[in-house]
Amino acid sequence: MSKQQSIHAKQGENIFAKNPKISAELLALTYGAFVHKLIKDTDNAEEVNAILDKMGFNIGCRLVDEFFAKSPTQGLCQDLSDTAKVIAEQAFKMFMGVTAEIANFDGDNKSFSLILRENPLADFVVLPMQNQKLWYSNVVCGVIRGALDMLNMKVNVYFKKDVLRGHDCSEIRVELKEIVKDRYEEDE
Amino acid sequence: MSKQQSIHAKQGENIFAKNPKISAELLALTYGAFVHKLIKDTDNAEEVNAILDKMGFNIGCRLVDEFFAKSPTQGLCQDLSDTAKVIAEQAFKMFMGVTAEIANFDGDNKSFSLILRENPLADFVVLPMQNQKLWYSNVVCGVIRGALDMLNMKVNVYFKKDVLRGHDCSEIRVELKEIVKDRYEEDE
Repeated sequence: MSKQQSIHAKQGENIFAKNPKISAELLALTYGAFVHKLIKDTDNAEEVNAILDKMGFNIGCRLVDEFFAKSPTQGLCQDLSDTAKVIAEQAFKMFMGVTAEIANFDGDNKSFSLILRENPLADFVVLPMQNQKLWYSNVVCGVIRGALDMLNMKVNVYFKKDVLRGHDCSEIRVELKEIVKDRYEEDE
Repeated sequence: MSKQQSIHAKQGENIFAKNPKISAELLALTYGAFVHKLIKDTDNAEEVNAILDKMGFNIGCRLVDEFFAKSPTQGLCQDLSDTAKVIAEQAFKMFMGVTAEIANFDGDNKSFSLILRENPLADFVVLPMQNQKLWYSNVVCGVIRGALDMLNMKVNVYFKKDVLRGHDCSEIRVELKEIVKDRYEEDE
């Protein structure tokens, strides 16, 4: 990402500044308490990953409405590179107060990575050894998947790296599977 | 509460302004998704109330450290009326971005109510008829109980009213049971 702030980042920042906010610590601790409960209840990190993803999906389906209600973005994204920018710079800023970096766009423009240098969900968190299969912030993948699903984009979203697991950064991979044709269009 | 801003409210606002924040909607939707899952899993509103309270307790135990790390409040509260003001005006503002009103202090200074005119947790929420026994924001009671527990104050905290249940306001009742003597003091 260039040092110069993009139009998406600027819009995200403006909307974030105007919207009601709460302390990031409160979210981090609330999220942490829930993940802790899920781990205790299921005792299976991979099941918790799936639950967090599914919850995120439902959140994303709602959040996308908020996004469009508040974002001055006109029209739809032209391609996946546009979509990546809007997610990384505008949506992350609007809701989480941070931006992500875009990296590793593949050759045929079907997948990309979001690099999180800051992650408000994971403040204060240390993963115990027995939870090394947990993708702690997996709810974020679900949110992206849910939001894009509402826009007819079927995607796979998953963590490839997480600083909580000792990686050098946190990397979310987004892979476009299919753009679903709108049913209303078919009816015409 | 008088129209003039108290010292606690001013401090809460200053700290809130400086601290990292995230969008209130993200907390509301994340919390909503978790409550929804708890209801689906247990199918028992009273059990969910208890789980939320217990989670809140753990959050409160952590949050109180954050509070003292950031709050310029000097020394301890002199009495419960002081405690009420710090919770309602400073702590609520610091973490939730809103203040609560204090009401219904009982004669012997052992209990009071916090009236929430705004509740960022409950934005967008409508309770289905079958969940009329749910105290949706019960995590807040746990947080207050946990935070005060760390300060050696044993309290009962519970919702008396909630706008989600059709009441005219949301009222949290705080009842002081006991101030535990510090073990270190006993050792001396």
